[in-house]
Amino acid sequence: MVEPATDTKSAVRTVALLKDELDIVIPTIRNLDFLEMWRPFFEPYHLIIVQDGDPTKTIKVPDGFDYELYNRNDINKILGPKASCISFKDSACRCFGYMVSKKKYIFTIDDDCFVAKDPTGKAINALEQHIKNLLCPSTPFFFNTLYDPFREGADFVRGYPFSLREGVPTAVSHGLWLNIPDYDAPTQLVKPLERNTRYVDAVMTIPKGTLFPMCGMNLAFHRELIGPAMYFGLMGDGQPIGRYDDMWAGWCIKVICDHLGLGVKTGLPYIYHSKASNPFVNLRKEYKGIFWQEEIIPFFQAVSLPKDCTTVQKCYIELAKMVKDKLGKIDPYFDKLADAMVTWIDAWDELNPTGAANKGKKA
Amino acid sequence: MVEPATDTKSAVRTVALLKDELDIVIPTIRNLDFLEMWRPFFEPYHLIIVQDGDPTKTIKVPDGFDYELYNRNDINKILGPKASCISFKDSACRCFGYMVSKKKYIFTIDDDCFVAKDPTGKAINALEQHIKNLLCPSTPFFFNTLYDPFREGADFVRGYPFSLREGVPTAVSHGLWLNIPDYDAPTQLVKPLERNTRYVDAVMTIPKGTLFPMCGMNLAFHRELIGPAMYFGLMGDGQPIGRYDDMWAGWCIKVICDHLGLGVKTGLPYIYHSKASNPFVNLRKEYKGIFWQEEIIPFFQAVSLPKDCTTVQKCYIELAKMVKDKLGKIDPYFDKLADAMVTWIDAWDELNPTGAANKGKKA
Repeated sequence: MVEPATDTKSAVRTVALLKDELDIVIPTIRNLDFLEMWRPFFEPYHLIIVQDGDPTKTIKVPDGFDYELYNRNDINKILGPKASCISFKDSACRCFGYMVSKKKYIFTIDDDCFVAKDPTGKAINALEQHIKNLLCPSTPFFFNTLYDPFREGADFVRGYPFSLREGVPTAVSHGLWLNIPDYDAPTQLVKPLERNTRYVDAVMTIPKGTLFPMCGMNLAFHRELIGPAMYFGLMGDGQPIGRYDDMWAGWCIKVICDHLGLGVKTGLPYIYHSKASNPFVNLRKEYKGIFWQEEIIPFFQAVSLPKDCTTVQKCYIELAKMVKDKLGKIDPYFDKLADAMVTWIDAWDELNPTGAANKGKKA
Repeated sequence: MVEPATDTKSAVRTVALLKDELDIVIPTIRNLDFLEMWRPFFEPYHLIIVQDGDPTKTIKVPDGFDYELYNRNDINKILGPKASCISFKDSACRCFGYMVSKKKYIFTIDDDCFVAKDPTGKAINALEQHIKNLLCPSTPFFFNTLYDPFREGADFVRGYPFSLREGVPTAVSHGLWLNIPDYDAPTQLVKPLERNTRYVDAVMTIPKGTLFPMCGMNLAFHRELIGPAMYFGLMGDGQPIGRYDDMWAGWCIKVICDHLGLGVKTGLPYIYHSKASNPFVNLRKEYKGIFWQEEIIPFFQAVSLPKDCTTVQKCYIELAKMVKDKLGKIDPYFDKLADAMVTWIDAWDELNPTGAANKGKKA
């Protein structure tokens, strides 16, 4: 049995790393009481809250937090017709927050995620670990058996090529979950009582050429390096599919990171995931994704981006073309999604005009 | 500070898995007192001891162990002129033990490796964990963020393609080391006091297409599936290089496993590695390897085996041709090594005549 940390008030407030360079993005439909537990770790940072669902509802944010909040009306006003690329009634709406941020880094977390404890019982500052992951290079070209070679007490092992020991800039840090694991509906149905109690004390780079299931619950990324590819797709209201928003983003960012020579890490930090979503509802959202992914994943495994795609935007537009071309035949949904990918880039560039100067810039 | 387990006598003797299907191969130049600590775990198994160095020296084996021992004279007698493929004055000689074994599985361990303790203080039965790893499928085609999906309390996470959840047979289980990490000479020289104290409670599949530095200190494999590729090369006496025997085998087995659809795992179990070897001596052995590997690794990353290579032997012979063709230009050593690879397969097939029936057979 794992428990969340409940005494975070007494947690030592360490220096808030990258305080002015990182936004925390939270999609929600309810009052953000969960922030109380995160106060010692999140309070120094700016929050971007993306309110999903009914825009007339008021979302309460605990006192003392610095935040901006966008509801559907705000999104429509800011993006105009381009707002069509932002999902409604689905946590995929969070990617609007990535777009309006002006910071270098993003951390995004779900509002049912609490502070986890490490095996010594200490409250885990998830954000601090994500920042460490992002500031440290990745090693996608060769596997290091002692995991992250840049961590204290570890290094590259015998046989690791010296020419690869500088690593590459890290674009994404994917954190994990204690208690409720991130299972699909069929697995939830089959194993309703399974809880993740295993704390694996490791961070590792996902090798080049390998895809992974990226979960958006506890995720950080370098917005300048990979932001325009962090699109969570069309999900929820009016769409035939849900719960594949983060997966879609994960497949896209991975092939683009591989192409641009950027790193993707997974492992620490853990958060405490408090509540399993309803598996019956999830099954309805997921079922098309469950068989579509059998074709989508081979598609992404085979993606090869042209050499002249030297910026994330160029890569993403190229990927949108490939999606239309190769996945459109699965279902008309993918035509719509490919169009939305292009709209997303248009909207991104409109909101991030100086971004043009950053295109292709590394770290 | 980590300590080895010293109270293994009281360790609970669990059922010895695969007792009649696994040999333990130990290369050594000294008395095997280290076996005392392993007694509760190794005693039910058959040992193959490969005595390196002076064959007139007598190696003492603690009472109660069932073993066969081969010194250089034995190797020369058994293999005749083909004995040239077995290294002398280097632990690479261990692969002779793989060849003379008649079992389905091999576990090999160095004689300076002791029983490690898990975080609860319990003595780790390394062999039992290796067997679990080998008997459980691998998942090389897609990364599972909760590590081994077949482990109790874990599963495939949301977004993992269902068509890949059966996994593939596991051919290799690579274990790790607490205390003295497996560093190269330059790292040993720079960090003489670094000790590995981090117990990472995970087993994972190394993804298809990714190479890794395979260490021979604590290694198990499915001899029928991959044995003929577990050749530790030409090292030590009369050779320009040492300490790359296991690396060489690791590169070869990985490209062949990838080609044949077999899995390679790394992570648990840990052993306690007691003593760092002399970094100055190591540097002399390694220095050619350190720069050669900068060309060898891109070579292995680019290896593509033809479709008609449907057995390990065929793959290995093809690989030997490629080595001669592409690496021969680095140094005449690689011509010699390519020839030895062919000799090794000849010797393997001679000692394993029924193996012909097993060629290409999976699990």
